[in-house]
Order: sequence, then structure tokens, then C-alpha cells
Amino acid sequence: MTFGADSKGVYAIATTPFLEDGSIDFASIDRLTGFYEQSGCTGITILGIMGEAPKLEPEESRAIVKRVVSRARVPVIVGVSAPGFAGMRSLAHSAMEMGAAGVMIAPPPALRTDDQIVNYFAGAVEAVGEDVPWVLQDYPLTLAVVMTPGVIAKIMTNHPSCLMLKHEDWPGLEKISRLRAMQKTGELRPFSILCGNGGLFLDFEPERGADGAMTGYGFPDMLTELIGLFAAGKRDEAHDLFDAHLPLIRYEQQVGIGLAVRKHVLKRRGVIATDAQRKPAQMLTPAAKAEVDYLLARMAKKDKRAAF
Amino acid sequence: MTFGADSKGVYAIATTPFLEDGSIDFASIDRLTGFYEQSGCTGITILGIMGEAPKLEPEESRAIVKRVVSRARVPVIVGVSAPGFAGMRSLAHSAMEMGAAGVMIAPPPALRTDDQIVNYFAGAVEAVGEDVPWVLQDYPLTLAVVMTPGVIAKIMTNHPSCLMLKHEDWPGLEKISRLRAMQKTGELRPFSILCGNGGLFLDFEPERGADGAMTGYGFPDMLTELIGLFAAGKRDEAHDLFDAHLPLIRYEQQVGIGLAVRKHVLKRRGVIATDAQRKPAQMLTPAAKAEVDYLLARMAKKDKRAAF
Amino acid sequence: MTFGADSKGVYAIATTPFLEDGSIDFASIDRLTGFYEQSGCTGITILGIMGEAPKLEPEESRAIVKRVVSRARVPVIVGVSAPGFAGMRSLAHSAMEMGAAGVMIAPPPALRTDDQIVNYFAGAVEAVGEDVPWVLQDYPLTLAVVMTPGVIAKIMTNHPSCLMLKHEDWPGLEKISRLRAMQKTGELRPFSILCGNGGLFLDFEPERGADGAMTGYGFPDMLTELIGLFAAGKRDEAHDLFDAHLPLIRYEQQVGIGLAVRKHVLKRRGVIATDAQRKPAQMLTPAAKAEVDYLLARMAKKDKRAAF
Amino acid sequence: MTFGADSKGVYAIATTPFLEDGSIDFASIDRLTGFYEQSGCTGITILGIMGEAPKLEPEESRAIVKRVVSRARVPVIVGVSAPGFAGMRSLAHSAMEMGAAGVMIAPPPALRTDDQIVNYFAGAVEAVGEDVPWVLQDYPLTLAVVMTPGVIAKIMTNHPSCLMLKHEDWPGLEKISRLRAMQKTGELRPFSILCGNGGLFLDFEPERGADGAMTGYGFPDMLTELIGLFAAGKRDEAHDLFDAHLPLIRYEQQVGIGLAVRKHVLKRRGVIATDAQRKPAQMLTPAAKAEVDYLLARMAKKDKRAAF
Repeated sequence: MTFGADSKGVYAIATTPFLEDGSIDFASIDRLTGFYEQSGCTGITILGIMGEAPKLEPEESRAIVKRVVSRARVPVIVGVSAPGFAGMRSLAHSAMEMGAAGVMIAPPPALRTDDQIVNYFAGAVEAVGEDVPWVLQDYPLTLAVVMTPGVIAKIMTNHPSCLMLKHEDWPGLEKISRLRAMQKTGELRPFSILCGNGGLFLDFEPERGADGAMTGYGFPDMLTELIGLFAAGKRDEAHDLFDAHLPLIRYEQQVGIGLAVRKHVLKRRGVIATDAQRKPAQMLTPAAKAEVDYLLARMAKKDKRAAF
Repeated sequence: MTFGADSKGVYAIATTPFLEDGSIDFASIDRLTGFYEQSGCTGITILGIMGEAPKLEPEESRAIVKRVVSRARVPVIVGVSAPGFAGMRSLAHSAMEMGAAGVMIAPPPALRTDDQIVNYFAGAVEAVGEDVPWVLQDYPLTLAVVMTPGVIAKIMTNHPSCLMLKHEDWPGLEKISRLRAMQKTGELRPFSILCGNGGLFLDFEPERGADGAMTGYGFPDMLTELIGLFAAGKRDEAHDLFDAHLPLIRYEQQVGIGLAVRKHVLKRRGVIATDAQRKPAQMLTPAAKAEVDYLLARMAKKDKRAAF
Repeated sequence: MTFGADSKGVYAIATTPFLEDGSIDFASIDRLTGFYEQSGCTGITILGIMGEAPKLEPEESRAIVKRVVSRARVPVIVGVSAPGFAGMRSLAHSAMEMGAAGVMIAPPPALRTDDQIVNYFAGAVEAVGEDVPWVLQDYPLTLAVVMTPGVIAKIMTNHPSCLMLKHEDWPGLEKISRLRAMQKTGELRPFSILCGNGGLFLDFEPERGADGAMTGYGFPDMLTELIGLFAAGKRDEAHDLFDAHLPLIRYEQQVGIGLAVRKHVLKRRGVIATDAQRKPAQMLTPAAKAEVDYLLARMAKKDKRAAF
Repeated sequence: MTFGADSKGVYAIATTPFLEDGSIDFASIDRLTGFYEQSGCTGITILGIMGEAPKLEPEESRAIVKRVVSRARVPVIVGVSAPGFAGMRSLAHSAMEMGAAGVMIAPPPALRTDDQIVNYFAGAVEAVGEDVPWVLQDYPLTLAVVMTPGVIAKIMTNHPSCLMLKHEDWPGLEKISRLRAMQKTGELRPFSILCGNGGLFLDFEPERGADGAMTGYGFPDMLTELIGLFAAGKRDEAHDLFDAHLPLIRYEQQVGIGLAVRKHVLKRRGVIATDAQRKPAQMLTPAAKAEVDYLLARMAKKDKRAAF
């Protein structure tokens, strides 16, 4: 179970299910793993920002990796971003030993200049090991680190072990086009580009050159269908499907409460037992919950997956 | 032509039209002013962030105020945010003398603590004059200044001349609910709340308590219709209309290129002569332009205003 | 070995000594612990920002706590700031079990509003336990979180277990005066204030009301002497001593390379074996090393502690 | 009266004197201009950040330029940083017409990537005109824009009209060394480097390759003497002089209240009539004023310029 520079499709950003008392809900983790696979996901990414990774103790993180890797029949990527290289190295090594396909690394918010960013990833690659396949996470909206196509190119050139870009710059369509253009001229080697940001621009990203999505939207089965429609050249159908989901995608893509929306939807779909989050948690108010449910009800008229 | 704490409807955030050589296009300004009024807008806000205000010289700003105020039959709000109080005072006084209904003030990005924010607006009100009606702009996504409901309440309590909140926090629905709840209990005096952020959450904001919108989306006629549907209690129809526009609203709501999308749409609708921006400008690539046009074409099937 | 709201003197911010291969140098840790005590320090703070805490794995952090606590005859404070409450709780509990006197908590850089800051510390106190004595770290220069006296007062009022403020706002003299004034009127309960920022304003902080210093400057013996001179009312002598050290204090107070200066001085004083840092490390260039040595040589003429 | 890539010495960052009623104090401007020249300054920079430029209306800025340029017998640099290129162009053109030697441009705080910074200055140079000599201001502590030596090199290569770097990175000694090394190998053309940050590292900057200082410390006569001592190879004497002033330099180098310290000293020296600032002003408390006066009294024992 590996991933590569030619990986395509949808990698689910997995939430971490908790029970109401804050303990990890392993039964829901198993259901979630199965759900992602049945939805057609080609990979699963765990312990990312939306996986509440910083709220876990190291041994808990390892237990989750072990559980998901042991069940999954698709490659599992493990988020190992950490405030220091020691913790990053430690989790990366454990994860790879347990059978993870690779790791994902995001830059820490304090980085500013191009050189600082490039140097940081040199240190990170040295920490996790040059033989460990990894995903570069580009997420300025939350991390406040802005990587130009030139910086991404330098990182990709410096580190052959980086096989994938989790693209979630915003706005970000031109960045995909620019990177693909650099690859066409041969000045940049191939790598996979999967898009995040909750799928908010997934109606155009494939045509710009993205290989698919890496996001945790509550309807991964819609995401895989959408990628399939684009692969089949069915542009208008793809947009019809996307537009039916856009009101909810947009609602979920709110910094802070997005995770609550996502867990609420996954709970309503019967995948996870509760929508509990560890502290600090930002939960949905009754008004917000009613709004999400209203959007689901409207969506159900066009997509029966939302009818429950 | 005044506005008040009970103002409702849609205040258009006006773009500033330029000719290809960078000079101000007054003919387009006139058309735009008329277009906003015919679209049912209850007010016009000029020289805001999306009005390229910092790219204008003081005398140019004054010329634009004069032109719009002299033509408009709805209240005109003038953005007077400036790096120093001297420039703010000067433009505010000119604007009010020329017949503006009030001014809009955004906090400078360096502010951090609640006290700093509250004190800044005390200085700003002293600068523009305590008798000048003004709009408080709350726009953390671009300005990086976060105002809690408590801070907004303090500012509103300190300054009776503040009649309106331009709400564009993101996520921001709970903030509307919270402020309205504070007003219901009487701990906060009444003021108008018009929402920005390109209208991205205008399918729920009215029900949370917003009085309408203050934004520059290229279809202000849709915005006024939407507000009307909500006022008439036609919730589902409102959502149908909103959802038809959401793909474009979402596309336009990209920081940086949003203005280019907006000008492109207004140009295609025949309202402004060119989509030129003053430098530094972020223009649409051919790919982006094609995407916007595709979205317009899809929209035209549901809303004939997009058929041109 | 406890600390309290009436703690005074100098709490040394301990560096973490490493061997050249990056492993922890426990022999140097023992020497350093002894050195701080012989220098007259009334407490030791370990695993702070300048202690390279994020570069340690959890088991390493625990080993260091165990070692220092087992040897020290003064109270030991343990920095437990972490990206999530799980890691914070875990380290805090271990540290207290091993005999630490308390913990120190800094706010994460993403916090902006007064409420966010106050709420964060409510969560942190719940995580570490309401019975665990703690130090509030106020360090905007590095953490970008600005706490007004009002916010500090709220935190102190909410949490009786907070016994000390590590004050390193910059500029910060007025904040000390303001907090002490609030205590004088009785609107704020007593707590200890120890100042950081490398001691850069320690020639005025005691007169403003500080109880001493919490910093890692390479001459803690000078810091304790300085506090003693102020306690004895010998103002001019205190300034003479301070001024002799100011060129080096200023040089050490450079963000990024300050730790390298500090380790270089402690190595030259024979306290730690190497000036090695874990990656990412910012080391002194030969030019910088020569500058520090020149400053030490000049200082030696006025303070024989610098003659080695 | 021009400046060039070989300019040396001290360029005074001029404060803008106001009367108590907030109006510009032209008599003090004249005295200040003379004072800088008598202090041996080789240039004067007006309307910089510490010149309260954003608090001036455009016509006021022009009046100040006119006054200083008409009196000064050394080159005058005019700060033209502005939120938009229109205002920058306008002030730059007026200033050059009135006889200024050049302009100074700082980057706006929103810039992040290397490309954004380089592109911004391309736009700025186009705005002010490619024939206008200018100074690049590198001031990350206040502006939050970090320029690597590589970025500075690119800007210098792109724009032959940039003749000087106002260096106030912090820490910044290695940056001077790096830029000078690049010039030695010929990969970078010559330009002048004058250091800011209140002179806080002026005891080492000349040896690293700086040509002098551009700062507004209240004792410019000390700064010129210091630069002279270094030029004459009198290292120890230079440090003796510097160390006598360091307690005050350090006190003045506090963000926010630094200007108040500076105006207080200039007032006590009889150069400006009042220490008034325009709003928003951060004034000295009585305690702070007493601290500055105590530092001045101590300094007077070693430098009679402080005896008044």
C-alpha cells in the first residue's frame, strides 16, 4: 500500500472520533475507515489539522495510526507536523514502522521568507528520514505561510521523497496551472497534486491539473463521483453535482466551526457515534445545527446520499 | 438623504471604474450609480477597500465623492479609513460638506487588544467629528483585527454617531445572533447590521438578524431580490435564488482576484466600460476569465440577468 | 520547595545542554543546576522557550524534569506550553508528581481577542488541574499575543492557582506600574511579578514594582546582586552594575541568536560542556563570537566574573 | 545636494515638531535642521515613520519638505511610503521638484513572499519614476516584512536608482556582513548601508561594513563622533562613547514610546519647543520621564552634551 507521484483520486482527511467523555472512539474509527473505502477513496490521511492531532498525546496518536493502518486497504498518510523536529521524527518513524504509506508535513506559522520555508523542509526531511515518502501541505489560510510556485519547486527539487502537494492555497487555481506548466516544460519533476480547502473549488481544480482532492468533506462519496465525472469528460454533470453540494461545502469551510459541521454530518450519516471534540472545541449552536440540517434537506432533493 | 440605525436593504460597495490609461472613468461612475439605484439598492458606499481607495490621490477621492453624491438619490457612505487621523478627518469633512450621508471606518491592521481597538475608534470619532454618522467596518479576514461582540458593543455605546455595522467577520453568523440578543435584552442600543463578504452567507444572515447586505457582488439586483424574499418570508425561494448565484459568489469571494471578477461581470453587464484596475492590480488570467464566463452561462439558465 | 504569590529574587530560565551529537548532556544539567543555586537564584524554570522544549520528545522532557527536580534545593517551575491541552496536561501531571513546584504556561500565537486569551487559560487550568500552581507568561515579542493589564487581571481573578506573572512585554514598564496600582486599590489580588526579556530593563523594573527577574542571562550571579542592591536601596550602585552588563545583555537579547550567545557565555564560564543546540539551530558566526568575546573582555574590567 | 551609493556618515531621521495645539512648529523645524547640520550629520531624512508622516495631510507634508529643503545644506531624503502608489508618486514628484535629494520607501506590512516584495518595489519605482534616487527601508520589527539578503540583492539589481539601504533588521549584523560579501565577489553592485534601530548596534555595525547610521537618536552629535572614531580606527574609544549612551539608546528603542523619549530629549536640549505629538500619541508618564532624566543625569558624568 504505497502512494506515489502519480496518485490520483480522493484522499480522505479523517476526523478523529471521540466519545462524549473525550476518549478515543475506536469503533467509530473502524467504521470511518470502512466508510472512506466504500466511498471510493484512494487513500486516507489521519492526524491532520482537522484530525485534532495537537489534542492527542503521543501514545494516543500511535494507537490511532496502528488501528487505521491495520484495517485500511488503501494507503494511509500520517500528519506529523509538530512544533519541533524531535516529535516529528518520532511519530514519523513509528508510523512508517506500523505500515503507513507516508507522512504529511505543514510549515510552522512563524516562517516568513522563501529561504526560511525551504530550509525548514530540509530540516524536516532530515528528521523524518530521506527515504520516507511525504506530502507537502500548503495551507496559508490557517498557517499564514505563503509558498510561491518557485518555493514549492525548490522543495520538490531538493527532496525527491516528496511525492505529493496537498494544495490548499486560497485563491489557488493559478498556482495549480503554474506548477503544471513548469512540469510541462521539464523544469519541475512530476508529483501528485490533491486539493483541500474542503473542496470549495473542486469544480475547476481538476481542469487546472489537479489529480484529485485531499479533504474531509462529509460526503467523500460525492467527491469521488465528481472526480470520476471530470475524468470521464462530463463537465456539466460534474458541475451539477458540485453545485448541489456547494451550499454545504461553503458552510463547512468556515474556519473554526468547520470541524463541527463535518462531525455533525458524519454522525447524521451514521458513520461516527458522536460529534464530540476534545477541548478547545468549537461546537455548533442550535441555530447553526438547524441551518446545516436545512441545507442537508435541500440537498437531499438532488442527491439521495443526503436523505437520511 | 440620510441613513440611520434602522437602515435596511442593500448598500452597494461601489467599484471605482478606470479607463485603460488609469484615469478615472466618470461616465462609468454615472452609469454605475444609476445601475445600483435601478437594482433597488437603498444606499451606495464608495471608496471602500474594493473601491481601490488607497490608489487614489486625495483630490481624486474628492472628485469621485462629488460626482456620486451629486447624482445619487440614495444615501452615499464614503470610506475614510486612512493610515492617520489627519487624512481621515480631511476626507470626512469634505465628503460631508459635499452631501455624503456618512462615512465608513475600518480599523488599521496593527491593532491587537480590545482596548487598542476601542481607543482607536475614540480617536477616529474625534477626528471626523462626533456629529458625523458612521459605519463600523468589521473585516478580520483582510484587516486581521478581530472584534468580539463585547468590543463592538463598547464602541457602539461610546459613540452614538455610529449607526451601522458592516459585518464581514468570517465565520460570522453567531456574531449577528449575539449582537441582536444583546439588543433584545436592552444592554445594547439599536443599530443597523449590513453584511459583507461578497454575500457568501446571505442565505442565512437575514434570519440571524441582519438588516441586509453591504457588498459589491456584480448582481446587486439579485441581492435586493433576495432580501425582499426573506422579508416576505419566502425562505425556500430565497435559497433557490441564492444557490443559483452561489458558484459565482464563491468564485468572486477570493481575496486578491475578487475585484477583477467583479469588474469583469460589471463590464459584461454593460455597466462599466473596462475592467481596468490601477496598480498594483491583480487581473484575471484567460483561464480564470473562461471559468467566470462558464459560471455566468450556467447561471443564465436559472436567472436571466446573467444572460447577455 | 514551593513558590508563592510572594516569591522574590531571580528564577533562572535554564538552557538545556546538549552534547555535540544532539543527546542530552545530563552532567552539564547537574552543573547548571548547581551554578544557578550558587549564583543565589531563588528558583529555576526549565523547558521554557529558551530551553529548546519543542525540540524534545516527551520522555526526554520528563527525564530532564526528573534530573533537575531531584538535585535542586530551590523550587523548579516546568514550562508546559504545548499546541494541545493533552500534551500540556500530561507533562504537567508528570512534573508535579516528580516534585516540581509549579508549571509555566504561555498563550499560543493564534489568540487575538481578550476573550480568546481569557478562555484559553481557563482551558489550560482545567487541563493541568486547578490545584497546580502556575506562572502566566506574557511574552508578546515572540508569541504575538498582547495581554492588557485588564486581561491579566481577569486571568488572575479567574484562577487563584496562578501565583506569578513572567512579565516580558516590551515595552513593559508601565504594565508593571499599572498592575501594582490595581493591587494597591484592592481590585486585584497579590501575585509575584518576575521580569524576563533577558533583563534588558532590570535597571528600572524593581522600582516599578517587580519582585525580581526570571530570565536566562549568562550572569545570573549579577542578576541576584542587582536585585539585592535595589532591595538595599543602592540605586546608583545598581545602575553601575547594570550598565557594565548592558552591552552584553543587549547583544544577547537578539531574537534567534540570543540562545547561542547565552550558551557561548555559559560554556566560557565552564558551566556547560558545549554550546550545541538541537536543530533548527541558529549558531554564532565567527564574527559574532568575536564580538561577544570582545564585550566580555570589556566587561571584565568592571566585573571580575567576566574575567576568564 | 545629492546622495549616492557611496554616502557615509549620519543621516538624521527628523522628528516633526508640533505646537501644543497640534499645528506644525516651523520655527522648531528650522532649529532642528540647523541642529542636525551642526551635529555633523551628512544628510537629513524627513517624513519617516518616526516623523509622524501618516498623521500629516498631503499639503502639510509638502510644506515641511519645502521648509527643510530650502534651509538644509545637506541632502534631504523624503519618506514617501504610502498605502497606494498614487499618493507615493504625488509626494515623490513634489519633493524632487522642491529639491529633495531622493526618497525613502518601506514595504507595506501585508507582503509575505520574496516575489511579492520584489514586485512591490518594481511598482513603487515605476510610480516615483526610474530617475528618482531612493533608499530601501528594511524594518521588519515594525513592518513585519522580512527581506533576505537575496531579496535585497534582487531589488538592487532590478533598480539602479536605489542607492542606499536603511538597514534596521533585528538582529541584523549578519545581514550587513552577507551583503558586503556579495558585493566583494562582484555579484552585487555597490550601495550605501546606513543603520537604524535607534543605533542599538552601532558599536559593531561599522566593522561589519555599514557606512554609518540613519536614525533619530536625540544625540546625533554623539552618532557622528562615534562614526568618526570608528573611521579613525579608535575601537575602544568608540565603545566607551557608545556604552555611555547605551542605557538611553536602549530606553529610546522601545516601540511606541520611543518617539516620546526622543522628543523629550530634543526638547530638553533646547532644539524643539515642545514634545507634543499628534494623535494617536503615546506620551511619557511622569515615572518614565523621571527615568529618562535619571539616565541623562548619569550620562552627563561621561558626556557633557547630556549636562543641561
